[in-house]
Amino acid sequence: KNKRKADIDTSNLIESLLNKDITALSRAITLIESKNPQHKVKATNILQACLPHANNSIRIGITGVPGVGKSTFIETFGKHLTAFGKRVAVLAIDPSSTITKGSILGDKTRMEELVKDENAFIRPSASGDSLGGVARKTRESIILCEAAGFDVIIIETVGVGQSETTVHSMVDFFLLLKLAGAGDELQGIKRGIIEMADAIAINKADGDNLKRAKLAKVEFNRALHLYPTKSSNWQPQVTLCSALKNEGIDAIWDIISDYIKTTTNNNYFNTNRNEQNKYWLIQTIEEQLKSNFFNTPKIKKALENQLELLETNQTTPFAAAEYLLKLYS
Amino acid sequence: KNKRKADIDTSNLIESLLNKDITALSRAITLIESKNPQHKVKATNILQACLPHANNSIRIGITGVPGVGKSTFIETFGKHLTAFGKRVAVLAIDPSSTITKGSILGDKTRMEELVKDENAFIRPSASGDSLGGVARKTRESIILCEAAGFDVIIIETVGVGQSETTVHSMVDFFLLLKLAGAGDELQGIKRGIIEMADAIAINKADGDNLKRAKLAKVEFNRALHLYPTKSSNWQPQVTLCSALKNEGIDAIWDIISDYIKTTTNNNYFNTNRNEQNKYWLIQTIEEQLKSNFFNTPKIKKALENQLELLETNQTTPFAAAEYLLKLYS
Repeated sequence: KNKRKADIDTSNLIESLLNKDITALSRAITLIESKNPQHKVKATNILQACLPHANNSIRIGITGVPGVGKSTFIETFGKHLTAFGKRVAVLAIDPSSTITKGSILGDKTRMEELVKDENAFIRPSASGDSLGGVARKTRESIILCEAAGFDVIIIETVGVGQSETTVHSMVDFFLLLKLAGAGDELQGIKRGIIEMADAIAINKADGDNLKRAKLAKVEFNRALHLYPTKSSNWQPQVTLCSALKNEGIDAIWDIISDYIKTTTNNNYFNTNRNEQNKYWLIQTIEEQLKSNFFNTPKIKKALENQLELLETNQTTPFAAAEYLLKLYS
Repeated sequence: KNKRKADIDTSNLIESLLNKDITALSRAITLIESKNPQHKVKATNILQACLPHANNSIRIGITGVPGVGKSTFIETFGKHLTAFGKRVAVLAIDPSSTITKGSILGDKTRMEELVKDENAFIRPSASGDSLGGVARKTRESIILCEAAGFDVIIIETVGVGQSETTVHSMVDFFLLLKLAGAGDELQGIKRGIIEMADAIAINKADGDNLKRAKLAKVEFNRALHLYPTKSSNWQPQVTLCSALKNEGIDAIWDIISDYIKTTTNNNYFNTNRNEQNKYWLIQTIEEQLKSNFFNTPKIKKALENQLELLETNQTTPFAAAEYLLKLYS
């Protein structure tokens, strides 16, 4: 009887979600984030029901160091999009949330206007989990948001550890926010991030900052030309904006629209999404295989022993590996 | 009877090898490189017998782009070491050898003098195998060379793909050879290589090149200071040399000796070797787990099917992964 009730609950939730009900979307994401096994079953059913209605959005990754003005940018950018009828969902991948229980988007007052907008949906980063766990939940949340009729999905991250790479592997377009000014190249943006960017927006390009921002634009354009052509065939753009003064925001959407047109025409858009799906499939399997192996009690014990033999040069890494693999099989 | 004969053969081979017989060492390495299962059993026994006599060498990785003068450098450097009684083994990790069947060290005439030196042993890269396979064979060859009384082991590699990282993970000291001159930073040395270097030697620093080489030294020293302190607590050195004119070679050995002293005193030398062993153990297990999984016939077939469902958005990467993992278990 309980099971039947649960089934009806889930059906209702799915129906509401597909009818663009934001409360239902919120509840569904909560089920995805839950560690409760019953919730997991429900979450799987909801995802399966949402899949045919998903995949019709533009997924945009946004990163930049703290202080670059990400919240203000996302608020202004999001309002710009909802103003011409787009429905915008904002998700976050915040590796620090595993410790602080969510700092990005945790304080919704940071995006006062967007929060009140009925065409916007803002969801803080899942917390208390590994980056891999958060990544999975975010990817599944994207599907739910799309099924709930959101046509632009923004994934925000802060430049820590591997989080940009993770976000890059789940979006169509990757936007890097930067500040102009001395020591900019040392702003803590790791190498490789520039390489991933489809556009660099130099924020706070207003007032006294404008001249420096223009210089920075020249510099970044030069830097970008040093990289080999992307497989998307897209030449990354550098642009100036001031989120606070709502300047240059429309130009960024134009760049993104251009990108979508170019990559749809050359079929990179779909190829890339397929590659991303494959990547997550393989990644998930590999992580699970390792975790299964190293969490097996008899392996744990034998590994300790083999490491001791290794430290005292009584075995080689390869002989030890063979021994453990044989024990496992 | 055959088995007994084989045992006697192996015992004799081990005895000769431990008596510093280079022919025996060569034969033992050939057994390690063989794909024949009987040879593999022999190789394992030989390695086990060699282990107590190994680990007493200095392992030096040397890399640099083609044209930097690696062969000439290793010849001059090797001769310098044998001249004061060191026994020097030169091995190579050549990723291109999987295609070309060995280009590095393949042509022994490149090191004419060193080849004739009875205190030197030169062995080309194993070929026809993946980088992982070559790496394993090289690591095992190091043990054999050490058991055969070689006290300096040089591992040469050319800057292609992942090969430097592989070499770095099996040596005590990592030497990067560079050339001075315009566009040097674009010599094809990938980022991250500089970070791994314990010393950078600017080769061909003679004649007209000397001035530019001195400038390059200043540049590299500046670049090196931007990196955080290494866990070895060693400050990487930049030095000039001309392998062709035998200039600055002794200084490089002095740097290496300094490094060994510093890292022996602060215990990094041993810690690092233990970490390397652990790394190779874990690496080997993980590779094998993946390979076992993805080469299982029923998984191969089911994976194809899941990828199709994924491409048509009928499943998620995570649901597909769970399905495959359940099928495997």
